[in-house]
Amino acid sequence: MTQAGILQDLFASITSRGRRLLDPGSRLPATDIEVEALCEGILSSLGEASGKAMAQRFLSAYDARGPESRAALFELLWARYGIDADAAVAAATAYRDNPGADTMQALQDAAEPRRQELLRRLNQAAGATARLVAMREDLLKLLPARPHLREVDMDFHHLFQSWFNRGFLEPRRIDWHTPAVVLEKIIQYEAVHQISDWDDLRRRIDPPDRRLYAFFHPRLPDEPLIFVEVALSRDIPDRIGSILEENRTPAAPEQAKAAVFYSISNCQAGLRGISFGNFLIKQVVEDLSRELPNLKSFVTLSPVPGFAKWLAEQRRSEDGFADAAAKRELKLLDAEEWWRDEEAVYTLQPLLMTFAASYLMLAKTEVGAPVDPVARFHLGNGARLERVNWLADTGASGLGNSHGVMVNYLYRLADIERNHEAFINQGTVATSSAVTRLARPVILAASL
Amino acid sequence: MTQAGILQDLFASITSRGRRLLDPGSRLPATDIEVEALCEGILSSLGEASGKAMAQRFLSAYDARGPESRAALFELLWARYGIDADAAVAAATAYRDNPGADTMQALQDAAEPRRQELLRRLNQAAGATARLVAMREDLLKLLPARPHLREVDMDFHHLFQSWFNRGFLEPRRIDWHTPAVVLEKIIQYEAVHQISDWDDLRRRIDPPDRRLYAFFHPRLPDEPLIFVEVALSRDIPDRIGSILEENRTPAAPEQAKAAVFYSISNCQAGLRGISFGNFLIKQVVEDLSRELPNLKSFVTLSPVPGFAKWLAEQRRSEDGFADAAAKRELKLLDAEEWWRDEEAVYTLQPLLMTFAASYLMLAKTEVGAPVDPVARFHLGNGARLERVNWLADTGASGLGNSHGVMVNYLYRLADIERNHEAFINQGTVATSSAVTRLARPVILAASL
Amino acid sequence: MTQAGILQDLFASITSRGRRLLDPGSRLPATDIEVEALCEGILSSLGEASGKAMAQRFLSAYDARGPESRAALFELLWARYGIDADAAVAAATAYRDNPGADTMQALQDAAEPRRQELLRRLNQAAGATARLVAMREDLLKLLPARPHLREVDMDFHHLFQSWFNRGFLEPRRIDWHTPAVVLEKIIQYEAVHQISDWDDLRRRIDPPDRRLYAFFHPRLPDEPLIFVEVALSRDIPDRIGSILEENRTPAAPEQAKAAVFYSISNCQAGLRGISFGNFLIKQVVEDLSRELPNLKSFVTLSPVPGFAKWLAEQRRSEDGFADAAAKRELKLLDAEEWWRDEEAVYTLQPLLMTFAASYLMLAKTEVGAPVDPVARFHLGNGARLERVNWLADTGASGLGNSHGVMVNYLYRLADIERNHEAFINQGTVATSSAVTRLARPVILAASL
Amino acid sequence: MTQAGILQDLFASITSRGRRLLDPGSRLPATDIEVEALCEGILSSLGEASGKAMAQRFLSAYDARGPESRAALFELLWARYGIDADAAVAAATAYRDNPGADTMQALQDAAEPRRQELLRRLNQAAGATARLVAMREDLLKLLPARPHLREVDMDFHHLFQSWFNRGFLEPRRIDWHTPAVVLEKIIQYEAVHQISDWDDLRRRIDPPDRRLYAFFHPRLPDEPLIFVEVALSRDIPDRIGSILEENRTPAAPEQAKAAVFYSISNCQAGLRGISFGNFLIKQVVEDLSRELPNLKSFVTLSPVPGFAKWLAEQRRSEDGFADAAAKRELKLLDAEEWWRDEEAVYTLQPLLMTFAASYLMLAKTEVGAPVDPVARFHLGNGARLERVNWLADTGASGLGNSHGVMVNYLYRLADIERNHEAFINQGTVATSSAVTRLARPVILAASL
Repeated sequence: MTQAGILQDLFASITSRGRRLLDPGSRLPATDIEVEALCEGILSSLGEASGKAMAQRFLSAYDARGPESRAALFELLWARYGIDADAAVAAATAYRDNPGADTMQALQDAAEPRRQELLRRLNQAAGATARLVAMREDLLKLLPARPHLREVDMDFHHLFQSWFNRGFLEPRRIDWHTPAVVLEKIIQYEAVHQISDWDDLRRRIDPPDRRLYAFFHPRLPDEPLIFVEVALSRDIPDRIGSILEENRTPAAPEQAKAAVFYSISNCQAGLRGISFGNFLIKQVVEDLSRELPNLKSFVTLSPVPGFAKWLAEQRRSEDGFADAAAKRELKLLDAEEWWRDEEAVYTLQPLLMTFAASYLMLAKTEVGAPVDPVARFHLGNGARLERVNWLADTGASGLGNSHGVMVNYLYRLADIERNHEAFINQGTVATSSAVTRLARPVILAASL
Repeated sequence: MTQAGILQDLFASITSRGRRLLDPGSRLPATDIEVEALCEGILSSLGEASGKAMAQRFLSAYDARGPESRAALFELLWARYGIDADAAVAAATAYRDNPGADTMQALQDAAEPRRQELLRRLNQAAGATARLVAMREDLLKLLPARPHLREVDMDFHHLFQSWFNRGFLEPRRIDWHTPAVVLEKIIQYEAVHQISDWDDLRRRIDPPDRRLYAFFHPRLPDEPLIFVEVALSRDIPDRIGSILEENRTPAAPEQAKAAVFYSISNCQAGLRGISFGNFLIKQVVEDLSRELPNLKSFVTLSPVPGFAKWLAEQRRSEDGFADAAAKRELKLLDAEEWWRDEEAVYTLQPLLMTFAASYLMLAKTEVGAPVDPVARFHLGNGARLERVNWLADTGASGLGNSHGVMVNYLYRLADIERNHEAFINQGTVATSSAVTRLARPVILAASL
Repeated sequence: MTQAGILQDLFASITSRGRRLLDPGSRLPATDIEVEALCEGILSSLGEASGKAMAQRFLSAYDARGPESRAALFELLWARYGIDADAAVAAATAYRDNPGADTMQALQDAAEPRRQELLRRLNQAAGATARLVAMREDLLKLLPARPHLREVDMDFHHLFQSWFNRGFLEPRRIDWHTPAVVLEKIIQYEAVHQISDWDDLRRRIDPPDRRLYAFFHPRLPDEPLIFVEVALSRDIPDRIGSILEENRTPAAPEQAKAAVFYSISNCQAGLRGISFGNFLIKQVVEDLSRELPNLKSFVTLSPVPGFAKWLAEQRRSEDGFADAAAKRELKLLDAEEWWRDEEAVYTLQPLLMTFAASYLMLAKTEVGAPVDPVARFHLGNGARLERVNWLADTGASGLGNSHGVMVNYLYRLADIERNHEAFINQGTVATSSAVTRLARPVILAASL
Repeated sequence: MTQAGILQDLFASITSRGRRLLDPGSRLPATDIEVEALCEGILSSLGEASGKAMAQRFLSAYDARGPESRAALFELLWARYGIDADAAVAAATAYRDNPGADTMQALQDAAEPRRQELLRRLNQAAGATARLVAMREDLLKLLPARPHLREVDMDFHHLFQSWFNRGFLEPRRIDWHTPAVVLEKIIQYEAVHQISDWDDLRRRIDPPDRRLYAFFHPRLPDEPLIFVEVALSRDIPDRIGSILEENRTPAAPEQAKAAVFYSISNCQAGLRGISFGNFLIKQVVEDLSRELPNLKSFVTLSPVPGFAKWLAEQRRSEDGFADAAAKRELKLLDAEEWWRDEEAVYTLQPLLMTFAASYLMLAKTEVGAPVDPVARFHLGNGARLERVNWLADTGASGLGNSHGVMVNYLYRLADIERNHEAFINQGTVATSSAVTRLARPVILAASL
């Protein structure tokens, strides 16, 4: 009996005999071979028409498995539901020789792993979208040890790109009228400036000069995909402390001049690589501009997460940006609590400001993008590097990662596209003249 | 200067010089070359990040065009944004020789027409999904005269299949509390038993024993995709008149025994080939079962649209199902208003009932599916041919298309999958014994 | 056995024996004596705590009765649940002699008919508010023949005044997204310019330059209490035809200069005497001012329903406002279709305009209010009589009631209170100088 | 110049000159005389038609005042806006001598303090209802020191009784999908078993076997009026600990046999005397019966707040329910942590159980109602005293107030009215036979 025959048979036994496995109440773990039969069933003509119950069963079977067993299932998806390479070559050749709708369709079918159709049909089950996102989260964790599974991941990514298309995202404002079930996720997902408890959350969403906006997907109504926290203020703030302070007097939104994006967090690990941040920031800039015409600047107050590491390299390097004099002075950073020492601060401030500006403008990856991931994100969105702020974050991670420096990126609607284009095409980092001035000594030295 | 160079340049002029075209308020029609530049822009890295305005502009440009000019645009999409066949062969070969995530990605990219990415990015614009559906509606009308555009249509179809995945559809009950903006579309889209006006509509959704359910997509909140009309009744009805009667006394839903699906209409011509009906019927069967446990049967009251045409063929044919005696008696059908003539009815009833049953059970297309499209749909969904009803629709089209015959298809949840499988795999038409008995004389004769 | 004893007993039999009457499913009509027992039960300590079922039963009993029998029930309410006059005198005297909270409470209790508490407790039943409103509608029809029932009506009025307090009304905009169940009531209740069908309705709510606002009460969610129709236009319109025209090109709301209230309709006959119109107009003026700062004028286009009748009186009267010359010329009005006769129009226009202005400014009731009910309403709200329009409504009722004349009343927020005060205190009719000029000849003649 | 004249004048100056006070943005405190002028204005014909702005101003003036100044304002309401006693006597006499609608209206007007109309008109302002409730909260605090203000309070009470009529209350289920703005109020208002934080709250509303229901009023959408917490469980619980435990495994609602009302809290101090609890419990019993037909008992788990105090009296009293032997044994209660001492418990249990049952059944106020307020509430609602639970609450207040005893009251829909009637009319306390048995020794002794 052939393998296909066995499966056929097995599947028949599943669907007719007692339907033990398809029974949504069944608590029996499904074996690998049963899961494979389920996959075949879902991909069959039967699955096309009425795969909802089978999809449900597959997802339950997945949930019931432990990590080892989940990995085995991904291996199955990899081994059996990929592309048939010979068929793909044949189809491509046929299309080349005889282009037309039918050969084109055949080529696309041949070039698409069967997994994609499987995932599409799994998505019919109630609540499936959220569960598929969670499934990919598991998969991503397996990739380092099993790099070949990246092929499987690519299918998830491909479909999520389509399902989580910008056109399907709903922007929503989150405030104190939002259901608790969503709010607790904001607490949980905030990744930049941790939210310590419900009172802290309330301080970020309830006062009239604080806003929080998120994207939602219609199929995950209680799950934010990404959110951004905004402070409305009279000036562009130069340190995070003034924003997170507990006993502030809130400002009147109608008198604010700046909207400050001080935290942006992705919520779904399973949606890695599907980018929302860019869209969300622009949406919020548009909405706030309309609502509060008094707002003149849209800026971030952002960390510089790679600065300390890069500076350490410069201090070690023979041919970096730091000369002997600079290296000597930078030793002050090695003292504990250097930032409370007035003299050290006096020496370090101009030096660190210059190096921070230079880092952001000049430190590039092999493909020419900024080394700093936050800079890469905002500059790639078309923002401008506006200001470097001294001792702006003296928390543990602020000092550890960036010697306390934070920066403002400026979103000016009229310039976003030009900045973005110059950044993408020429690698140009848009900067204010103040930042350029800060970096000048290093730029000049580098160009000698 | 190369073609690409020209476009580049043109696009640059669009984006920098005055942004005349991107201005959402602009009323200037875009030339073909400008539209092409827009396409390039949308597909560029700029479009990836901030293509919303360009997408908006493209869609406005499309809307502003007349039929000729729209056809030209589809031709452009066909000619310039398809698959590069040589590249596809090369990618397929590379994947075969060296399988892995990167070569797989390359193959998929090569096998996917660039149009797909274009359409995905167009979908970022506000309200884009509805407009893309409308665009495909135009395209479908062009296909008969321009069959090569089917390649373009396949890309729409592919994406819509993903976007309108069952998982994203929302079932909603439509009743007299539904907004008028939706109700007027029900009036407009009803395709089986026309709704004459708002009073007629009200008779179909307001009485306690009448229901209407539709699928909606979150991005088209006011547009039903498909809907089904249901009558709750004590018996399985044997004629449409009893359902549509104006001055009925509504029955109490809690005492109904049967839910009758008497009309199902697809609403969006631009979604042709994306099937919803199967899902909708099963959803409604599930929901009604839960809400009204007193319901024992879920049946349709359906037309037999191909019967009269098929019977005419039998009458003409030498070696069809009709023998000389039958042909003689069937001449009674040629008299005007034969159905009011008691004697003719007496003769014709057994004959037509038998032929109708035989038509539905035996008349098959080349690939073995029932000739009758309604039968194909319900039997393919796993329903059973339950009963043939005599003089069930004496309206003009009922008499013209099916000599007044209507049938009930029965949806029994426990049998749906088995029926479906047998239908798909062996072409078996599930029938009640009563229907089988009706067709027996013809079946026996045919098997001689 | 006393009457009270009998009732007590009867009521006991109702509540314990089988509870036939309280059974919500019971279809037995309740006799008068049973209804009386119900009233006693509802007013008893039992009713206070758990009168919902009894209230339900009372309302069903009421609904089941015919007109005669309903009248009998109102007579019962009148005869048995009024004020005990002796007790009232005693309580008032006690309060006078010994003022304090307890005597005050006793006085209020004594001065309040028991009916009020009965109605309050009836209102506990599900859907009771709507049914009590309907009950009063019946009652109002009985008043002409049974004037003593006005005492009963006063209790309804008193409670409705409290329940339908402005603070509990919700303004809502009605448009094409409104549920059909509400829209059909708009069609039904429009009292000024009849809405002929759903297409006509759509023309009034769907175009961007047409608005309809209504007040709702939280307990009657599908029942508008009052609504006003508004046209946004560039100019203050001088005839109704231009507003109701079928094939208009809608104007952009952002370019409108005037908001025209061209129809205002009370919906609930059972709420007669509870005034909403004044609040609704001011609410809409406020809301529209905020939404569309381009609006400069808020005016009505109103009928002058009493003009023709008044003018006929002047023509008959010896010592009215019309002298012999005027009477002679006014005979032109007696010709059929006089308004199509150019010459007649030439003569009549100045005359009728002057008389219309005079009628509105000078014709007063005994208590000094304008005779014209529409004028009374708008002037009482603080509007100004702005303009008289010639041949503004040539429909049958427009010609019959007001010889085709319509007027604009102007609502200017800054003047509303002053106009209102002058109107209430001195009977002053606020008029534009143009209207004053029109009326001057008559005013001068009258003051001789 | 008369007092009225002065006010008139002052009010004129307010309304015309700059409208300083009516300006909603104005921050100037209003003097007493200005407030009085406002009251006059609101009660004038002007106020009837357009008192919204004045009402707004009055409420702001009130809010801006300190406690002293608020008391002065209530005194003003007392002194100037009450009933004119002579007029009331005259009106009552006129009605007696000449009964009819007009004299009746006159009597009612005369017997109603002008304050009531003032409050009705104040309620027109946006958000006024909530502010009037808060105003009464202030007023109630003043009553002990200024008992004459009870007259003012009676007017608030009278109107609130009408506005917060059961017919206007909306029952809502509160769960983890409820907005935070409401949830924080649940935390704040829980009065029986304090909610320590958001996690504690979640344990009470999120698990499938926990429910919380509240009444809301349409004008106070974010403010619960009263709420009840319900635990679904297999048995009638005999101690509070099992309900509030942190690490319970939730039960399936479909398998629960009992719904336990373990906490009921009034939220609005300003609505004292307007009873909701009775309605809420019955509503929840009805709703849960329908939703979960498996529920067989609806019971409370209630404190016995007056027991310890009453028992102390018995121990002191010469002729109470406790004889010498009992008094001796009850001394065990005076030891610290007696309830951890096995022997003491052995002795005390039968004694305390008997005394608790006796207390609830026999201890009555002068008017014959149970002394225990919780017993009064539930028995008055028609519940039955079902079970006395030993060591059911060993928290500080549980031990202090009731020596650890708690009781279950049983709500059986079929008996509610009978129990209620017997309770109201004969003072009968409905008890289970088990409770009756417990109390028997004391009852027998008492009846000797």
